[in-house]
Amino acid sequence: MATKLRQLYEGKAKKVFECEDPTMCIVSYKDDATAFNGLKKGTIRGKGVINNRLTNYLMQKLEKEAGIPTHFVQELSDTDTLVRKVDIVPLEVIVRNVVAGSLSKRVGKEEGTSLLCPVLEFSYKDDELGDPMVNDYHIRAMGWCSDETLEKIKEYALRINDYLVSYFKTLGIDLIDFKLEFGITADGTLVLADEISPDTCRFWDSTTHEKLDKDRFRRDLGDAEGAYREVLRRVFGDNN
Amino acid sequence: MATKLRQLYEGKAKKVFECEDPTMCIVSYKDDATAFNGLKKGTIRGKGVINNRLTNYLMQKLEKEAGIPTHFVQELSDTDTLVRKVDIVPLEVIVRNVVAGSLSKRVGKEEGTSLLCPVLEFSYKDDELGDPMVNDYHIRAMGWCSDETLEKIKEYALRINDYLVSYFKTLGIDLIDFKLEFGITADGTLVLADEISPDTCRFWDSTTHEKLDKDRFRRDLGDAEGAYREVLRRVFGDNN
Repeated sequence: MATKLRQLYEGKAKKVFECEDPTMCIVSYKDDATAFNGLKKGTIRGKGVINNRLTNYLMQKLEKEAGIPTHFVQELSDTDTLVRKVDIVPLEVIVRNVVAGSLSKRVGKEEGTSLLCPVLEFSYKDDELGDPMVNDYHIRAMGWCSDETLEKIKEYALRINDYLVSYFKTLGIDLIDFKLEFGITADGTLVLADEISPDTCRFWDSTTHEKLDKDRFRRDLGDAEGAYREVLRRVFGDNN
Repeated sequence: MATKLRQLYEGKAKKVFECEDPTMCIVSYKDDATAFNGLKKGTIRGKGVINNRLTNYLMQKLEKEAGIPTHFVQELSDTDTLVRKVDIVPLEVIVRNVVAGSLSKRVGKEEGTSLLCPVLEFSYKDDELGDPMVNDYHIRAMGWCSDETLEKIKEYALRINDYLVSYFKTLGIDLIDFKLEFGITADGTLVLADEISPDTCRFWDSTTHEKLDKDRFRRDLGDAEGAYREVLRRVFGDNN
């Protein structure tokens, strides 16, 4: 079994460790929550365990049922997972099905407004710049990834969206929008990396429209813990 | 000859009037200058005349030499021009060859940094929202124009850029970036509208890199009038 050696990196919600195999690393999920580019900080109890389990389950489903390569290798514990080591493509890939969050402010449309088609957005991953929105031309002109990688990212992102929208619908959850990150392994394969969880997705109950995601923390709506547990319960059932 | 009847619209730098022919209107250029979404206001003496002459000359060249349909019909006076009436596509189309202005802030690169390829950006025309940057997916999802129109706008914008970069190079001017607007005539033709002038282009002297455009006003660099006259002189020669 893989062992955590030197810490490579500590992010806002996860730590990443070296392990014996130089082509792998270990991701360790934390309960720390941040919002607004780190300006708001807090803790959501149990979040690390929930996000670890949800991410691993969804990545395995995406691999098997939608043919999306991911960095997932093996769940090691409640909070820790062995993943393929990647060079992260420095883009946040945002997929939107319904207007919410920053898009609502950007285009002056109320949250919940439907869109004529799914929207992809890219942000350049740079905390100091505030992860600015960029487009295909910026990505090409700045050399942030190859055209081939960008086209594959778009294709994967839309396929992941199709798959996840249908899946969450069966659980009574509307997938409003979510953020993906991709990486490239040592052998040059583009894979889905990072996580898929209430930290990175907007989940609204299909009937009540109650928010079951990090917006409960961002907007002080209360019981973020309960919302994360509710998503876990819908995915794994009552006896998880 | 066409006569100005009822004023249809007053913009920041131009007025638009009805004329006898319902498929046409008359644009009248003003000396008023604004920046930062109207927060900064002033006057650049002679600007109206210069922008009218430059825009008409460049639009005619683009029609004849680059095959770009435009709204231009006939120059009526120093400040007034007869144009085809259009429904404006609610997008500002920005073409960039070198990092400057908002792109410099967005991606944290110094002004003057070269780009691996030309960059197109779209802003949704809405003063209250501050003309937010949007991408292809937003345009499609909000229904701001058809896919066909969007593809044609991109093709025209890049062709206009190729043509203008080469042309201004012969005048010792680097075309750093510029903003275009397009409209659709009553018969459904997509045409280049608005203006092409030092109000809407960043022009840098190829040798000294001196700014010959509205940045002289925006940034209080002095002698904006002289910069506009210099562009006019390079285009039309000393005896204009």
